[in-house]
Amino acid sequence: MGFLEKLQARRRATGALLCVGLDPDMTRMPGSFKMSAQPLYEFCSQIVKATSAYACAFKPNLAFFEAHGSNGIAQLERLLAEIPSEIPTILDGKRGDIGNTSRLYAQFLFEHLHGDAATVNPYLGRDALEPFFGFPGCVPFVLCLTSNPGSADIQTVTSADTNERVYHRVIHLLERMPGPFGLVVGARHASLIEDVRHHASNAPLLVPGIGAQGGDLEATLKAAAANGAPALINVSRDILYASTGEDFAAAAAKKAQWYSQEMGRLLQQ
Amino acid sequence: MGFLEKLQARRRATGALLCVGLDPDMTRMPGSFKMSAQPLYEFCSQIVKATSAYACAFKPNLAFFEAHGSNGIAQLERLLAEIPSEIPTILDGKRGDIGNTSRLYAQFLFEHLHGDAATVNPYLGRDALEPFFGFPGCVPFVLCLTSNPGSADIQTVTSADTNERVYHRVIHLLERMPGPFGLVVGARHASLIEDVRHHASNAPLLVPGIGAQGGDLEATLKAAAANGAPALINVSRDILYASTGEDFAAAAAKKAQWYSQEMGRLLQQ
Repeated sequence: MGFLEKLQARRRATGALLCVGLDPDMTRMPGSFKMSAQPLYEFCSQIVKATSAYACAFKPNLAFFEAHGSNGIAQLERLLAEIPSEIPTILDGKRGDIGNTSRLYAQFLFEHLHGDAATVNPYLGRDALEPFFGFPGCVPFVLCLTSNPGSADIQTVTSADTNERVYHRVIHLLERMPGPFGLVVGARHASLIEDVRHHASNAPLLVPGIGAQGGDLEATLKAAAANGAPALINVSRDILYASTGEDFAAAAAKKAQWYSQEMGRLLQQ
Repeated sequence: MGFLEKLQARRRATGALLCVGLDPDMTRMPGSFKMSAQPLYEFCSQIVKATSAYACAFKPNLAFFEAHGSNGIAQLERLLAEIPSEIPTILDGKRGDIGNTSRLYAQFLFEHLHGDAATVNPYLGRDALEPFFGFPGCVPFVLCLTSNPGSADIQTVTSADTNERVYHRVIHLLERMPGPFGLVVGARHASLIEDVRHHASNAPLLVPGIGAQGGDLEATLKAAAANGAPALINVSRDILYASTGEDFAAAAAKKAQWYSQEMGRLLQQ
């Protein structure tokens, strides 16, 4: 099964759209992990087991593993081998380079790590994006419109020639690519999610920024999943660090269940 | 010594501006490396030894190592520990993410791998760039204007509001950051390098695209290093695969020497 089929099946199974972000931060894990040789793996492994029933997808953030070098990447490899294969993974590394180098990044993400999807940066344009489309069943999620303070620096620049904004150009570029694509859209402003949804009515949206980052769940969900379109609402810290004590896994399960049920309720309205 | 001081010292020592790109491609190395447990490390280690006399900097391309997973990153770690400390390293990974995640990428590049510089992607704006400025002596080289076919998709969009192009905005953003920065500028069109140099008269430029990618050395060099400004002209494949036989290291040394002497000659004119 490819990413899109897995996602659809998980949406039916969970009744919701929760993506659990895996951002293992040594400074926020229970102290007992400091003694472990593979703390990132062990922490995330327990989170995965505790939240699998509620997760439509898992999204490991590569920076948190890479910061520990080859040892961190080895922990990511071990973790990914353990995630149930019916739950799709989105490898969040925001890679992108010119042609042959982008192809190597795609090989790392889709072949070596067996990711079902991966986040991609579009600054280098079409030939940086294309290599991510060569892997059957795998879907690139391209950075479109984020909601951090710097998102206005480049993403919302309006072209004097075509009157379209940079993030609209990104969508139009992707429409000419030889396969399905997803878009990364920040949760801070529902009106901007609505605009992206208007320009890309069928693309799966990945929306980070709920929970610790302060996005509004109801408004986000209704804008992203309008008319039943595919979407994933990502929550990382609010689930991972629901408790920083030894009961962290149970607390994460409870928080994931709350998000899942809340999303299910809002989607029914 | 920080990156800028190391670069200046190497320019004096070599009389040129050659950056040797380390893109270890298993399909182009001599067949003997296929039997090695750490072929990327062993191939690059010999290239480094053979070309050190002519290199102002080494630029490992992270994708080529990462494609091999944790084993590839372990080889990169071993290689970096071996590069003579007086030759600065530019870690070419084109990373970039929102604040706390960018900070982890910077830690990986500047603390874990001890890079002197690193390439960075600006699509997420100012708060994605800022964390790369927090490491004394280390310099981020930000993607500005590349010369691949897709570079016109986003980088040269002209703003209807400010009449500046996206790559000019990137330069203006960087001018407000708390430290020195470099810019990545493609070699295909010398007139565009001249334009970037005009907008950023003192920033070190990293110019890939010479050799296998077809950029013109003389025009590139004169545009990038105008008025003695700091610049690095990167050559990767043309040096690494000067010979694909067992004499690859000697052939790489000869090719690096040729580039260095040719640059020295052109800089004297």
